[in-house]
Amino acid sequence: MAELSPNEIQEEEARNEALLQLVNERQFRTLRQELSEMNEVDVAAFIEELDPEKTVVVFRMLPKELASDVFACLELDKQQHIVSSITDKELTNIIEDLSVDDAVDMVEELPANIVKRVLQNATPETRSQINEFLKYPENSAGSIMTAEYIGLRKTMTVEDAFTYIRKHGVDKETIYTCYVMDNKRTLEGVVTVKDLLMNPYETLIEDIMDTHVIKAQTTDDREDVVELFNKYDLTTLPVVDKEDRLVGIVTIDDAVDVMEEEATEDFEKMAAMTPSEKPYLKTGVFEMARHRIPWLMFLMISAMLTGALLARYEAAFEVMPILVTFIPMLMDTGGNCGSQASTMIIRGMAVGDIELSDVLKVLWKEFRVGITCAVVLAAINLIRLTIFNPGQFMVCLTVVISMFFTIIIAKMIGCLLPMTAQRIGIDPAIMASPLITTLVDAVSLTIYFEMARHFLGV
Amino acid sequence: MAELSPNEIQEEEARNEALLQLVNERQFRTLRQELSEMNEVDVAAFIEELDPEKTVVVFRMLPKELASDVFACLELDKQQHIVSSITDKELTNIIEDLSVDDAVDMVEELPANIVKRVLQNATPETRSQINEFLKYPENSAGSIMTAEYIGLRKTMTVEDAFTYIRKHGVDKETIYTCYVMDNKRTLEGVVTVKDLLMNPYETLIEDIMDTHVIKAQTTDDREDVVELFNKYDLTTLPVVDKEDRLVGIVTIDDAVDVMEEEATEDFEKMAAMTPSEKPYLKTGVFEMARHRIPWLMFLMISAMLTGALLARYEAAFEVMPILVTFIPMLMDTGGNCGSQASTMIIRGMAVGDIELSDVLKVLWKEFRVGITCAVVLAAINLIRLTIFNPGQFMVCLTVVISMFFTIIIAKMIGCLLPMTAQRIGIDPAIMASPLITTLVDAVSLTIYFEMARHFLGV
Repeated sequence: MAELSPNEIQEEEARNEALLQLVNERQFRTLRQELSEMNEVDVAAFIEELDPEKTVVVFRMLPKELASDVFACLELDKQQHIVSSITDKELTNIIEDLSVDDAVDMVEELPANIVKRVLQNATPETRSQINEFLKYPENSAGSIMTAEYIGLRKTMTVEDAFTYIRKHGVDKETIYTCYVMDNKRTLEGVVTVKDLLMNPYETLIEDIMDTHVIKAQTTDDREDVVELFNKYDLTTLPVVDKEDRLVGIVTIDDAVDVMEEEATEDFEKMAAMTPSEKPYLKTGVFEMARHRIPWLMFLMISAMLTGALLARYEAAFEVMPILVTFIPMLMDTGGNCGSQASTMIIRGMAVGDIELSDVLKVLWKEFRVGITCAVVLAAINLIRLTIFNPGQFMVCLTVVISMFFTIIIAKMIGCLLPMTAQRIGIDPAIMASPLITTLVDAVSLTIYFEMARHFLGV
Repeated sequence: MAELSPNEIQEEEARNEALLQLVNERQFRTLRQELSEMNEVDVAAFIEELDPEKTVVVFRMLPKELASDVFACLELDKQQHIVSSITDKELTNIIEDLSVDDAVDMVEELPANIVKRVLQNATPETRSQINEFLKYPENSAGSIMTAEYIGLRKTMTVEDAFTYIRKHGVDKETIYTCYVMDNKRTLEGVVTVKDLLMNPYETLIEDIMDTHVIKAQTTDDREDVVELFNKYDLTTLPVVDKEDRLVGIVTIDDAVDVMEEEATEDFEKMAAMTPSEKPYLKTGVFEMARHRIPWLMFLMISAMLTGALLARYEAAFEVMPILVTFIPMLMDTGGNCGSQASTMIIRGMAVGDIELSDVLKVLWKEFRVGITCAVVLAAINLIRLTIFNPGQFMVCLTVVISMFFTIIIAKMIGCLLPMTAQRIGIDPAIMASPLITTLVDAVSLTIYFEMARHFLGV
């Protein structure tokens, strides 16, 4: 995805500089006025660039309702700095205004002494809610949900519902989808504000609610939650416990974050790294190395096996050293063909275009694509090689035939490996390019030197 | 992202089988009843599996309001089949009920004779709107927006606004964010239904609307639109023309689709393919080959250059064939190191974690990560090689030192190449793994044989 355009970045910088000047000249009234009209994301971006003292000065200047929104957008180290610099009363205000999911994220990441202070200053109700939410397993629907939703009763009229929303809606993440529950909190239906607006005041909620509710369980994997959002174009999803009682909702903005994180993880796995959760610039050198070395090591060792295989043919390239010069081309082309296929398959399975039951269709398609690519590349190669290596037609033929089979087999491996992984419950992205490259290397070298033995008698 | 769990797939299959039985037994009343309670996405999935005759029978059975929603969810070939099998009157009903963006998508993809029939049966108003939308360039904000939004005047009261929404809201994509315009359609502010609900009936819209509207222009790149959705956690975004007049809105579900498509494109580019727009199973063999061959060709030719480089050292491995057996390990490890770095950088730039101005920070970080990886891998290699190749310490040392430098240089290339691409306006994903592999191959082989010349005198 693209960055903001240079123009927009310049505008943002100009505005932040103007604001900084107001801070330095201590024109606090104007500053307060300016800040209170800005979007919380932009205020947070401005505060991120301030030095520690000024951070707290500016943060305290924000109108109360804006302060907690801005706080939720700040990076962890700024949050920590602010928490340790403000009074207990200010802290209580912020915590009570935060959505539970934002508060839980903060509590999970901050150091223990700060967390203690946060929890001490929360009301008992908020504290027990935070503790409840902390229990949900990582990557579960429970871990990404929030508790700020509107709950209605089916015996209410549309007018009752509006009165309830007017009274309780201010702090909710969304008011547009309301959840209908009985007195045990069992989810009975959903009704949207649009439904409410389109029906007369005296209508009973019972008569207009939709009882076919698409929902998730707290223990469901968050990837399945995202899948539901995509499939049904949802903007919110209710989350229930094992007894079908409503415990929270997931909103689309959190689902989008999960979507991005999962895609990033797939990118990392396919480039042979264990996925990391922090953004690049916030990750330490050693942590980064730790994510990269295990796979590099594994792949280095498998490449050694390829080397050992090559050693078996030492006699061949002792007699005909020119054979060696075609190794990079064969290995790289095979690797590229394999990772083209595997990327298509892995991504296709990730977005739901390809199911495991399609395995024969996929194999047949890759086989035909493989033959097409092989014919074209081999033909071009044959022409080029015979021109540049006159008098060595048999060597050229050996290279070209090896390339032909390598391409087809690489395509087959590239689709079979990730689908097999998925079948036996391993993440297909882990099976991607690098592992396939190693396998394809071994295959292509074996074909090549067996061909050489056959055609050239080496 | 994950697939639906096996349980969910089974449930879906069981339900679809039960429905199919109803079709076969011609129990149309029960079928109609069942279908009208289902979600449009599920009905569409059921219809996708029917044979052509039954498709139209079942589609005609749907309640009018459901029919157009289901139609929008169907694949192109089913849409085409239905359009050519229903009466003009039925067709008019569907087209008028579709959102403009869905109608435009359909018109862009269907064959000309079908399009003609569609446009003939649209009302003049819809037809001119579709034609207007068709003019926006591909991948622009205009191409993903829709026209079904609520437009208010600032002189309206909250009560007027509710009356207006009740009257005109039924067919709008979203009613929850309303746009305030003057009589030239210039965008003056936004007001949410939440704002309306939280304020007394007599309040003027002017007094509660937010005048700092985050918006896009019709010609903006759709990636920038997605960026705005992500940055500000939006659910809708207004789109204006050059004169700041409101022409449409983009809703979050369309933004999410763009997000997924862009990520898929990046996956494809990084695996050396030109991106395709159709899902895997719907793409023909030759089209697929056409997306893959150009890059394979380009990379094959660059690998030939590596081969030519290798030919310069023919004398070396004629004397010492064992040197050849370490080539795969060196090349693969270098390639993997390079693509680890490039993937991190490309993805980081795509999601906005890394800016171009961070280039020195990134270089310095990759340099240190490179040294860490290099030390660990070289040490392990040295131990392994000296054990398995007794009496050839100088060969082992050559391999290990070459590996050390290859890793560091590969990391540098892996971060510099995509950032340079971004700087000069080329898509960084195109510069990814395969191109880096080729470059790293050349570097690693040169280092290796120069080391061999130096240490082993070959």
